[in-house]
Amino acid sequence: MEKNRLEAFSDGVLAIIITIMVLELKIPESGDGHFSALLPLVPKFLSYILSFIYVGIYWNNHHHMLQCCKVVNGKVLWANLHLLFWLSLFPFTTAWVGENHTSAAPLALYGFVLFMAAIAWVILLNCLIHANDRSGLLAKAVENKTLKEQASPFIYIAGIASAFFIPWLSIAFYALSAIIWLVPDKRIEKALKEAKPE
Amino acid sequence: MEKNRLEAFSDGVLAIIITIMVLELKIPESGDGHFSALLPLVPKFLSYILSFIYVGIYWNNHHHMLQCCKVVNGKVLWANLHLLFWLSLFPFTTAWVGENHTSAAPLALYGFVLFMAAIAWVILLNCLIHANDRSGLLAKAVENKTLKEQASPFIYIAGIASAFFIPWLSIAFYALSAIIWLVPDKRIEKALKEAKPE
Amino acid sequence: MEKNRLEAFSDGVLAIIITIMVLELKIPESGDGHFSALLPLVPKFLSYILSFIYVGIYWNNHHHMLQCCKVVNGKVLWANLHLLFWLSLFPFTTAWVGENHTSAAPLALYGFVLFMAAIAWVILLNCLIHANDRSGLLAKAVENKTLKEQASPFIYIAGIASAFFIPWLSIAFYALSAIIWLVPDKRIEKALKEAKPE
Amino acid sequence: MEKNRLEAFSDGVLAIIITIMVLELKIPESGDGHFSALLPLVPKFLSYILSFIYVGIYWNNHHHMLQCCKVVNGKVLWANLHLLFWLSLFPFTTAWVGENHTSAAPLALYGFVLFMAAIAWVILLNCLIHANDRSGLLAKAVENKTLKEQASPFIYIAGIASAFFIPWLSIAFYALSAIIWLVPDKRIEKALKEAKPE
Repeated sequence: MEKNRLEAFSDGVLAIIITIMVLELKIPESGDGHFSALLPLVPKFLSYILSFIYVGIYWNNHHHMLQCCKVVNGKVLWANLHLLFWLSLFPFTTAWVGENHTSAAPLALYGFVLFMAAIAWVILLNCLIHANDRSGLLAKAVENKTLKEQASPFIYIAGIASAFFIPWLSIAFYALSAIIWLVPDKRIEKALKEAKPE
Repeated sequence: MEKNRLEAFSDGVLAIIITIMVLELKIPESGDGHFSALLPLVPKFLSYILSFIYVGIYWNNHHHMLQCCKVVNGKVLWANLHLLFWLSLFPFTTAWVGENHTSAAPLALYGFVLFMAAIAWVILLNCLIHANDRSGLLAKAVENKTLKEQASPFIYIAGIASAFFIPWLSIAFYALSAIIWLVPDKRIEKALKEAKPE
Repeated sequence: MEKNRLEAFSDGVLAIIITIMVLELKIPESGDGHFSALLPLVPKFLSYILSFIYVGIYWNNHHHMLQCCKVVNGKVLWANLHLLFWLSLFPFTTAWVGENHTSAAPLALYGFVLFMAAIAWVILLNCLIHANDRSGLLAKAVENKTLKEQASPFIYIAGIASAFFIPWLSIAFYALSAIIWLVPDKRIEKALKEAKPE
Repeated sequence: MEKNRLEAFSDGVLAIIITIMVLELKIPESGDGHFSALLPLVPKFLSYILSFIYVGIYWNNHHHMLQCCKVVNGKVLWANLHLLFWLSLFPFTTAWVGENHTSAAPLALYGFVLFMAAIAWVILLNCLIHANDRSGLLAKAVENKTLKEQASPFIYIAGIASAFFIPWLSIAFYALSAIIWLVPDKRIEKALKEAKPE
């Protein structure tokens, strides 16, 4: 099966997720239009930026990962939908954190959805490797686990745990994970270059 | 006519349908941010999951079905729009069930839209077979009706009927149909493999 | 310049327009969940169906028209955006008609937007013919104006005019125009077949 | 890496941005449906038109710019997401200006987002030139800065500054910049023609 519709559908869903998060930035209701009216929006805006970066990271890595693949099958389609399901909850958790950025529940839920999306990512990666074993390009590219891959589930768990004690530390953990993932996976670009030496 | 724009447009509409359903998960209005504030969202969340799976099934099978086709014509375009019309009502029925998950009307309407989408699917399938008769790949792949194809209209009707007596049974029927459709149509993957033996 | 991004962007905008119109179908606020709660939604639902068909017609004809073209240029991009602008007002006029289906202003505005979209369509068609004059496929396909092309501006004007006197006649005119446009432009499919005789 | 998914994702995000801005045009709440009910929407409608044109300009120029490129890399993906981030704030600033078109803060913020998007554009352009230096097509096309490129940052700054003193002048500056950018970059079409002389 061809992978282009999988890419197109994922691009569509990710584009909508990244854009509807901004709908939570509702314009100030007070009609006077001073800058001070923006102050209550600051936490929402910051949570929007963080989630925007996360969706950007997923789109970026999704792009890289599928560059290494030639084939998809039914299992890959469902593993991909499973990932999109968790990502589709980002607007909700982002909005809730934006509204209650010092409460345990929204911060822990935000981390839980991040954690589940990370697991869904690993499942998708394995399904893709399994479906494309012959070429082996993707399998070879990711065979050496990087530190950040190994660390990020623990960072999310640390973020969830600290949500119940020190809310700001929780946010710091989520921001940390975003920062270490900002750089796309060099292994894949390297593997692609080696595979197509021209 | 080429089929790629039909795919792109359908991908776009399905991506939006699957994503705007999550907009119904409105963040709790009470400002305290406890986990208990999520409790009233549980039925909405469950109806979101069910509808997400249904849209996923339709996207998945749409992908499979169009893989077998080479040509589309005006009739196919309208049969496809007809299918998208019924799917576009999913966010409404999902939200209404999420709000009133024990009432007859929302559950019956949810099943009715599922039933009409299933009929629209059969119409689209027949239009595609008619437009592609020369290749015959799709026609051959689906000539033997599977049990689930024959059963699912009756499951929807059972779900609609039981909505008026035992709401939970109605939900169980809709969930049952989703579960039996989760596996993509093996016949098409098999037919594709046989057609391209390389 | 390649036409595929023009198609992709138009598909995206049309997919969103067709889908956000359904957001106007807000679930009944009264919590009892009877079918009677759907009654006030009937006019909104009917205006949704009418606008869904119109957007479907535009997408369908857009698809046909661009099948005949090889090249786009800066003018075509803006003529296309101009068409998308008027189509982007459909959700607004649809919602207003759905809310006030017996008032003159919403019905006249609905017809005005239809009329402007029809004009934008003719402008886009001419820009495309101008940009693709060498191939001439599109130019030849549309050189004989059909009756419906000549009639539809007058139908919209009749619809706008009757909005101020007999609201229901106005709706009938808009429905009439949708019905006569439901069939895609046979001339283009014919011209395509002649051009690619294989 | 291939550029087609970058284009598809950007098309998706821009299509959604351009379409959700129209959601701010909420239908009049008063149920009588007279044309006078549209009067309060006039500033919102005008700010929608202005922002629609800006998004159209960005999409148009994005289309032109990527026509000259063959390769994208990780930096380009992030520079593109950075541009989309600022463009994703258009619906917010458009809605705020539509609500308070004579206040300093919304007008200044509108100009600030325009200014940041313009900077993000320059960053993306440079990343693309850097990633495609071998072909040099894009680099050659833009080596001579046009007047409008040099002027527009100053126009935005003038618009921001005048927002605090003469609101209408601020709007005039933003409209001026839109008008001078309406014509797509001829240099790129020219460079493309020279590169493919056939």
